[in-house]
Amino acid sequence: MLAETAYGKSSVRLVKVSRHGDRHDLEDLTIAIRFEGEYDQSYTQGDNRDVLPTDTMKNTVYALAAKHSVEEPEAFGRVLAEHFLERNARLRRVRIDLTEQPWGRIVVGAREHGQAFVRQGAESRSATVQGQGDQISIGAGVKDLVILKSSRSGFTGFLRDEYTTLPDVADRILATALTATWRYRTADLDFNLTWRAVRNTMLETFAEHNSQSVQHTLHAMGQAVLANVDAVTAVRLVMPNKHHLPVDLARLGLDNRNEIFVPTDEPYGLIEASLIR
Amino acid sequence: MLAETAYGKSSVRLVKVSRHGDRHDLEDLTIAIRFEGEYDQSYTQGDNRDVLPTDTMKNTVYALAAKHSVEEPEAFGRVLAEHFLERNARLRRVRIDLTEQPWGRIVVGAREHGQAFVRQGAESRSATVQGQGDQISIGAGVKDLVILKSSRSGFTGFLRDEYTTLPDVADRILATALTATWRYRTADLDFNLTWRAVRNTMLETFAEHNSQSVQHTLHAMGQAVLANVDAVTAVRLVMPNKHHLPVDLARLGLDNRNEIFVPTDEPYGLIEASLIR
Amino acid sequence: MLAETAYGKSSVRLVKVSRHGDRHDLEDLTIAIRFEGEYDQSYTQGDNRDVLPTDTMKNTVYALAAKHSVEEPEAFGRVLAEHFLERNARLRRVRIDLTEQPWGRIVVGAREHGQAFVRQGAESRSATVQGQGDQISIGAGVKDLVILKSSRSGFTGFLRDEYTTLPDVADRILATALTATWRYRTADLDFNLTWRAVRNTMLETFAEHNSQSVQHTLHAMGQAVLANVDAVTAVRLVMPNKHHLPVDLARLGLDNRNEIFVPTDEPYGLIEASLIR
Amino acid sequence: MLAETAYGKSSVRLVKVSRHGDRHDLEDLTIAIRFEGEYDQSYTQGDNRDVLPTDTMKNTVYALAAKHSVEEPEAFGRVLAEHFLERNARLRRVRIDLTEQPWGRIVVGAREHGQAFVRQGAESRSATVQGQGDQISIGAGVKDLVILKSSRSGFTGFLRDEYTTLPDVADRILATALTATWRYRTADLDFNLTWRAVRNTMLETFAEHNSQSVQHTLHAMGQAVLANVDAVTAVRLVMPNKHHLPVDLARLGLDNRNEIFVPTDEPYGLIEASLIR
Repeated sequence: MLAETAYGKSSVRLVKVSRHGDRHDLEDLTIAIRFEGEYDQSYTQGDNRDVLPTDTMKNTVYALAAKHSVEEPEAFGRVLAEHFLERNARLRRVRIDLTEQPWGRIVVGAREHGQAFVRQGAESRSATVQGQGDQISIGAGVKDLVILKSSRSGFTGFLRDEYTTLPDVADRILATALTATWRYRTADLDFNLTWRAVRNTMLETFAEHNSQSVQHTLHAMGQAVLANVDAVTAVRLVMPNKHHLPVDLARLGLDNRNEIFVPTDEPYGLIEASLIR
Repeated sequence: MLAETAYGKSSVRLVKVSRHGDRHDLEDLTIAIRFEGEYDQSYTQGDNRDVLPTDTMKNTVYALAAKHSVEEPEAFGRVLAEHFLERNARLRRVRIDLTEQPWGRIVVGAREHGQAFVRQGAESRSATVQGQGDQISIGAGVKDLVILKSSRSGFTGFLRDEYTTLPDVADRILATALTATWRYRTADLDFNLTWRAVRNTMLETFAEHNSQSVQHTLHAMGQAVLANVDAVTAVRLVMPNKHHLPVDLARLGLDNRNEIFVPTDEPYGLIEASLIR
Repeated sequence: MLAETAYGKSSVRLVKVSRHGDRHDLEDLTIAIRFEGEYDQSYTQGDNRDVLPTDTMKNTVYALAAKHSVEEPEAFGRVLAEHFLERNARLRRVRIDLTEQPWGRIVVGAREHGQAFVRQGAESRSATVQGQGDQISIGAGVKDLVILKSSRSGFTGFLRDEYTTLPDVADRILATALTATWRYRTADLDFNLTWRAVRNTMLETFAEHNSQSVQHTLHAMGQAVLANVDAVTAVRLVMPNKHHLPVDLARLGLDNRNEIFVPTDEPYGLIEASLIR
Repeated sequence: MLAETAYGKSSVRLVKVSRHGDRHDLEDLTIAIRFEGEYDQSYTQGDNRDVLPTDTMKNTVYALAAKHSVEEPEAFGRVLAEHFLERNARLRRVRIDLTEQPWGRIVVGAREHGQAFVRQGAESRSATVQGQGDQISIGAGVKDLVILKSSRSGFTGFLRDEYTTLPDVADRILATALTATWRYRTADLDFNLTWRAVRNTMLETFAEHNSQSVQHTLHAMGQAVLANVDAVTAVRLVMPNKHHLPVDLARLGLDNRNEIFVPTDEPYGLIEASLIR
């Protein structure tokens, strides 16, 4: 029996340059489209008559980007979702994932240049639009926001068993590559403004929190988002613990002063949770 | 309200060398451990008293790898799952993901060397063990098995709309990086033998199928797995369509003979489905 | 005959936290050390008696980072180079490559936080110190500085042959991931200030230039560096042409207004040159 | 002053399917083309009249792949080099780098399938052709051939200083991702056969060698290539030491039996040398 089928197009790359006189705006998106619906015959019979080609999905992204603003990824995702739902009778659920690569303006003298840009950050902004019938749900997020705090972080008083060798540490580096996603109550929002409010809230809470663990700080960040940004109904945070191991300088004849660390990629702790109202 | 919390350790790297006289066996695994349970206090209060450190999870992998065989990733995953469930009262569900990097033996003259190895393939073998109470469920899989067929593949007769420009193609290259996962009916299995049977079944079906689309071939592969390997109760296949675009040689004054292609990474079609008995 | 031997340690990761009351400074470096010298016996005879272990090179990085400032990668590289040259009689040439991962401060309210940081940019800063006898030469650079201009860029009037299909384009997107390296006349420099001056010069020139080609803009950027920053004696720029292909919207029934582009990764033009005084 | 300019096209992807009845052959290459010559005016004046577009270089790869065999990357590289040298008066030196991604045939029953393929190995085969005037030099190589030996490898008796903490180890895992390149005496060769002879020689020597260090084994491998394969005039080997650290099981209450290792990516030793006749 066939179950949970889906098909679509991933990694559709789009750059749009909008010209307002000397000032150009640049939007850089990577888009994935995912169809779920009554497409079983294409799997079981090789009958393609109801299958919209993924190549057409890609073309649709470019055509609708020419006709509509892409300044808010959430709003453009909605345009795409509604377009596909209206025209594809067998489509039950559509999901649009958008990732925005951030660009800033090159500064010449003290002035931002109107037509020259520099990539900012390894982090990216994400948006997700899901549609079913005439229901549209909209979410947003941030990927790989790498943050680190060098104080107010410890990990002590944990469970110990026969294989525990980790010592209590009262003062350690806490670092993570935050991936967070959240859902909005409504589509009637200033998405760009709200996205910045959520991101800032998470950053500020991370900076100020007296962290007993990654779990503890993750919870504080999620709670702050729900407290500060009314439009958000639920938030999920995924925080890999990017361990920074103190170098044992005593072996090298020097004092350990909690200054010299080795950041490591493997293995890493992985902490996740959702907070809902 | 806190929901869907999880924590654990990812990317625990393990190489085990087992010495049988002159013949060594090499196992190379990457392991992730994921705990779900009654750990809310660590999030809300920063109270770590019930939190087994992820560092201890890592140590446990090494200790149990020293005590037990790791020759079958599925069986070793079960050892880990049962160990954690028995000792952690607040642990409700544990998940162990294991990825095996494949090594073959270096051949010297016509003989396989007992103690020298060469990495094989970009593909890897996966296993997943999930435990809850005294229930253990075991699955396996393959990641990034890159396959290509240069005949018996077309895509025609599909839905067309205003943005469709794709022509019907009767004879095209079909290529994918297959990721498949499947569940086993029982833990009483020769896991290595069964894994090879599933992999071979998928490869043979891919090779022989008269493909009307990726969906069509994916379904045939899944069906063959359920038909040939009784121990498998469900299988999920994810097949990105790694497009190979024919170069238009007519623009260069040459004949198009369907021989010269540009493999592309972006964008790609993405086709998924599960088959269950 | 043995020729051009070298050995060393790569990817030594270092994070140093310097505490000045409430204000911490964070330095994040990746360091490679490369020895060339009279080490042939280790290759030909397996005689290790003159071989300083690469593990010791790594330890030395941590020990010297504890004793010295790492605020200027160039200066810290010099400390390392001189340390190794003084103590290793058979070392003829040493090369230290340092890559700095950039961090900024998290802003809380309107104030930069003293102890919380956010990773900035995909770009990184590099420094190279080479030592031989008592000669030390110092260079710096930038890696993967991704920049784009949406005006004042064309490519016309080029050579055509039987396989040329590219049309003249008077107005195109020009984008690159700039890697530049340069050498300094002296070690008596404010390295951080000078590095920023070079980077800004390249960015401003890129933004303002009326580009006839990547070659043309690369040359203008290099020339500006030599003109503006007296401490630089030579500069090398490597600029992959990250093509942004205009989508042919006419095929989709829409007007082409030079707004919608597909950024592509493969293939890419690769343009390089050095400028020396 | 402008120095060391070069321009070209990188990452040109090519798949060629050659049909011989039911048996298809598949070649999968990634090609880079690099021109050096009298192109200063394009840099200094933005004068493109002598500049063959890199887009034309890409087209040329496809056109010549349609006309010529690509079965031997070295021979196809030569075709490209000679083509460009003949037609571009200002071209002084051309370099063609080719990387072959390896595919094997899917086995159905006991028979290799004629038209279905599976990617093999993470390693790739490389070829380099350099041309200047009517001189052509040809080389080949292997990239990322990951190999490991679990016996006959130690590292003892090395230099010690104040920062040395590494103990002598008589029995360790030796692992590397070998990158080797070599030059051929002549273009009148069976390139595929010779390439396999060089690869096998390196693998066999690695397996059998009593290794005192990476340097020692690297030298033995290079020496064996020069001894066994007369067509090779010089070989360069680059061997990162992919450290496998023994886990200290004594801390976990278990015996250390030299069986359990953690493979690490960072940092790594890097050992290089060339051997010439």
